[in-house]
Order: sequence, then C-alpha cells, then structure tokens
Amino acid sequence: MATIYDVARRAEVSVATVSRVLNGGSVDPVLAERVTKAVAALRYRPNLVARSLRTQRTRLWAVIISDVRNPFFTDMVRGIEDVASAEGYSVVLCNSDEDEAKEADYVDVALAERMAGVILSPSSYRAAHVNSLASAGCPVVLVDRELDGVRADAVLADNEQGAHIATKHLVEQGFERIACVTGPREYSTAAQRLSGYHAALTEAGRDADESLVRFADFREPGGHAAMQSLLDGPKRPDAVFVANNLMTIGVLRCLTERRLSVPGDVGVVGFDELPWAELVRPTITTVGQPTYEEGRVAAEALVRRIKNPNAEPTRTVLPTHLHVRESSVRGR
Amino acid sequence: MATIYDVARRAEVSVATVSRVLNGGSVDPVLAERVTKAVAALRYRPNLVARSLRTQRTRLWAVIISDVRNPFFTDMVRGIEDVASAEGYSVVLCNSDEDEAKEADYVDVALAERMAGVILSPSSYRAAHVNSLASAGCPVVLVDRELDGVRADAVLADNEQGAHIATKHLVEQGFERIACVTGPREYSTAAQRLSGYHAALTEAGRDADESLVRFADFREPGGHAAMQSLLDGPKRPDAVFVANNLMTIGVLRCLTERRLSVPGDVGVVGFDELPWAELVRPTITTVGQPTYEEGRVAAEALVRRIKNPNAEPTRTVLPTHLHVRESSVRGR
Repeated sequence: MATIYDVARRAEVSVATVSRVLNGGSVDPVLAERVTKAVAALRYRPNLVARSLRTQRTRLWAVIISDVRNPFFTDMVRGIEDVASAEGYSVVLCNSDEDEAKEADYVDVALAERMAGVILSPSSYRAAHVNSLASAGCPVVLVDRELDGVRADAVLADNEQGAHIATKHLVEQGFERIACVTGPREYSTAAQRLSGYHAALTEAGRDADESLVRFADFREPGGHAAMQSLLDGPKRPDAVFVANNLMTIGVLRCLTERRLSVPGDVGVVGFDELPWAELVRPTITTVGQPTYEEGRVAAEALVRRIKNPNAEPTRTVLPTHLHVRESSVRGR
Repeated sequence: MATIYDVARRAEVSVATVSRVLNGGSVDPVLAERVTKAVAALRYRPNLVARSLRTQRTRLWAVIISDVRNPFFTDMVRGIEDVASAEGYSVVLCNSDEDEAKEADYVDVALAERMAGVILSPSSYRAAHVNSLASAGCPVVLVDRELDGVRADAVLADNEQGAHIATKHLVEQGFERIACVTGPREYSTAAQRLSGYHAALTEAGRDADESLVRFADFREPGGHAAMQSLLDGPKRPDAVFVANNLMTIGVLRCLTERRLSVPGDVGVVGFDELPWAELVRPTITTVGQPTYEEGRVAAEALVRRIKNPNAEPTRTVLPTHLHVRESSVRGR
C-alpha cells in the first residue's frame, strides 16, 4: 500500500506539502494538482488512525436522512459522496425514518464516534439536535429542510417557487378546483410548498379554499389517504398539486382504484422527480429538484465549515424546474 | 494485533502517555509525535483502548450495500434496522456503489472504527474484503450475493427458482424467443438467475440460444443498452426476462423509445418488486423478493454471530414469488 512518502516522491514535492494538500491547507495550485494526481495514481489512502490522532476526529461524515426509501435522498447522497471522496472523507448514512427519537440516537452516535461532520435532513422541527451538535463543536449542515432558531449552513430547494409554477401551470390548463396535498405543517418544506400554491391561486385572482388542502406525512399511504379524503370531501377537486414524490405515488394509486382518469377527471402535478415519471401512462408532470446538486453544495458547505468553524452561516437556495408531461395537460 | 503496550514500548513512553495522546490530553509534542509514529507503524487501532473497559467495540453496525439508489437495498435496510434497534445497535449505511475500491474503503472504516458487526452485499466477487473483516475478528454476514471461498453466514433469495418461474410463465404464455438480460457474470445473483432461465427453457424442451442472452451491469443504462442490442441482434426476441429492477426500467424505456408495445411486441418479466409496478400501463409482472425479510434474517444472523463467533456458518435461502400482471400476459 502506498505511503505518504511514495506520494511525495511521485509528485516531486515534500511530505509536508502532501500533508497540507490532504488537510486542506494553502498550497500552490500547480503543486496541489501534482499531489492530487499522485494520490489518485497510487490509490493512496491517508492513514485513518494517524489522521484522527492528529485532528481528534475521524474522517467520517454522518449523513442523517429522514427517509432512506425516498429516492430524493438517495440521489442527493451521490452528490455528497463525490465531494467527500475528493476531500478524503468517507460517508455513512443514517436513516432517521421521520422519527425524532431515531434522529436523536444518530446525533449521539455522531458525537460519540467523533465524526468529522454531519449533514442533516431534519426529521424534527425542533432545533435541539442541531444545536447539540454545534455546541459540541461538530460541524453541521442542514439540507432539504431548515429549522427556526438554528444558526447553521443550510442548502434548500426553492420550494415556494416550485409549488408556484406547478399551481400556475394547473391554472393555465383550465383546472378550476385545484387541491394541494402537502406534508406535516411543522416542516419548512411543507409550509413553503403550501405557500407557493396559495400565492399562485391569489395571483390568478382565486380565493384559497382550505377544504381543498390536506396535510399528510410525505409518505405513500398518507398521500393515498389524503386523496381519498379530498374525493369524499364537499368540493371534489379536478386537479391536485402533491408536495412530494412518495405522496404522488399514493395519490395516483388512489385515483387508479377509484377508476378516475388522469388528467381527464383529475390533473396531477407532483413535487420531486420520479425515476419512472415517463414510463407511467399518462406520464407524470413533476417539479424537479436539483438533487445531486443539493448534495454537492451541502458537502462543499460542510468542507468550508470544517475549515472555518466560525464563519457566518450560509443559506443556499437552488431553483426547481417544471417538467410538463401528460398528467396535467388538458385538451381544451 | 498490536496492543497499547507495544505502542508504548516502541515510542519509549509510558502507557499513560500513550493513553493521554489517544484521548487528546496535554502531552509534550515530541513524545506525542513518537506515539503517533508508533501507532502508525504498528497499525494500532486506538479505539480498542478507549473502549476496552466497556465492550471493545462500538454499538454500530455497518451495512455496506452495493447501490443506495436501488430500492431493493433500501427496503432490506428497514428489516435490518428493526432487529438492530431491538438489540440496542445503531445502523450506518455505506454505499459501495458497485465499486470494489469503495467497498475496500468501507471495510477499512468498519475495522478502524471497531464496528460491532458488518452486513455486506458484495460489490466485488473476490473474497478478500470479507476475509479481512473475519480475520480481524469483526463479525460479518453476507446478504443478497454470496462469494466463493468465504466462510460466513449468508442470507439470499432463491434466485434460480425465481428466474425459473418467471421464464416458465413466459413459455406458458406462448412466447417463443425469450431473451434474458442478467447482471455481471461474476456475481452469484446474475449467474443463478441465468441458470434458472436456462433450466426453464430446457424443461420446456427448448435449446438455449446464447444470442438471446446479455450480461449487463444491474443498472438502468445497462438494461437499456442490453435491450437495444437484443433488438438489433440476429434473432429479435418476443419476450425478455430481466434480472433486476433497475435494468427493467432501462428495458422498458428502450421499448417505449422504439415504440414497441408490451406485451404485444415484447413480453416483460422483471426480477425484484417495483414500487410503481401497478401504476405503469401495462402493469409489470415481477418476481418479488422478500426484501424486508432478507434484512431481518441477516440481522438476526449477525446477532447470533456476535454472541457466538465460532458457530458453523449458516446459509439461508428465502423463496421468491411471481406477481403476474399485464406486461407478460398474451391474449391467445
């Protein structure tokens, strides 16, 4: 196995320079590139023990995600892993399963194992877990959801804008009773997506009608139940904006069971891309988030936070895009 | 394996000094450097000491899966987590991304962090990684894929039986040129599924035709390319058995692009359940694995292995089930 001396020899630099590159110090970019190439060519892996001795932390990042079965999170993880790997970190995933107690357990694990940093998609709307990481000196970045009362870097999609364009599109297609199935009202993502839906209706001169809004749980059975409740409600919707991918599956399943046609009886737009959106008939209109990009940007924020623990927290909002497909397009 | 006494002797310091260095206490930098060098030279793992008073190991399990974006693995993880949680362990996921080098990194991490156990779905067909865990005394259970030359507990689906019933079903539906898209030939799952396909054809009195077989990569683009190659080949198939879920998406995408109807032009059966199999038109016939159960049984095997490291390895094979839907049913 290659040592740091082998890397230094191949890159024609000193061991100290290799070390500075590996530890993120300031190095002439030309030398840094030679080191990076030598590290790759020799498949050099910095000795984990030596590193954690020096820094008192492991080279591990914990990525605590709220639902490992949601493809949004697993796509995002790829963006995180690519940055981590280039920076010499390994990533372990922790599935908090939308459960506050599990999230607390994983925060404890990250602290007990002295992980180098944490990227957290909160399963709780309370700030306590993030603040306990921060007060123990563990660098932390929030992704997807943000929390009131927390001073931490955050990387988010533009949820309000995404919901706005989705709802506006349904208005433009001539749908009249546009419903919204959103997530738990305490989550920033659910609130922001609901807010974008309201804004688009207001802009179109329509009154918001709370009998057309349901707060579900961001999961498939919750989406199914919410759609049933809407169909059995006082004002039957002719379209629905669904605030995440898993609930969209539940909504579609419910409409299939009720033998309602999409978009003939009910138009559908779902937030989040679906890997099979183009295989379903009708194909499904979605609001796509830049998931890989969210992971990448969050990982870069964590790298900066590790190097500079006292910098002002940043908040990055990434745009979403509407992919118009058959489920929302009405022949008028 | 080196002890703290070996480190102290080599560094020519007291054990107390080694311990202070390992625990981040105040130590003369000259002595600290001697300790650091001794630790590196002896490949000594400090957590051993830190934890020796308690359990020698953390309460963490590493679950090293070969593709975090494959819902098969994330469903399985739920089964693992439920057992782990009941037994007081936390689970961290490591995504080896079908990459042997990443798998090696995560095996190093599990050893360096002294994890209590590892559940591994191999991204390599070589035994080295598993054997390095076993020889370091780290309990390990294989799941999904098995490896030649490894003495470890393994939990698998009955891949041959699943492929057999899928292919037999296509024969019974009257398809005549039944193709098979399987995974990399070195993986046990790919080989066993191909073998079940061959067995069903033989049983039906048909000759195996290798021009109807493709070895792809268990991922969507690989499935797409394999289907293209089959359609452009000398003998155009009228049905295809696809050996995993992601490749099935690729195959369906290819058939959609070519404007071929399913099952009219090409019948399709996919291995692995698909969360949206009933939302697609036509609905997709699948061979379902008991994914949650595979995770649960693997976790129970790990618990037993931790309690009794010297027991004979077990090999558990769980049955699969054919879910007949529209994609494979021909009006005759």
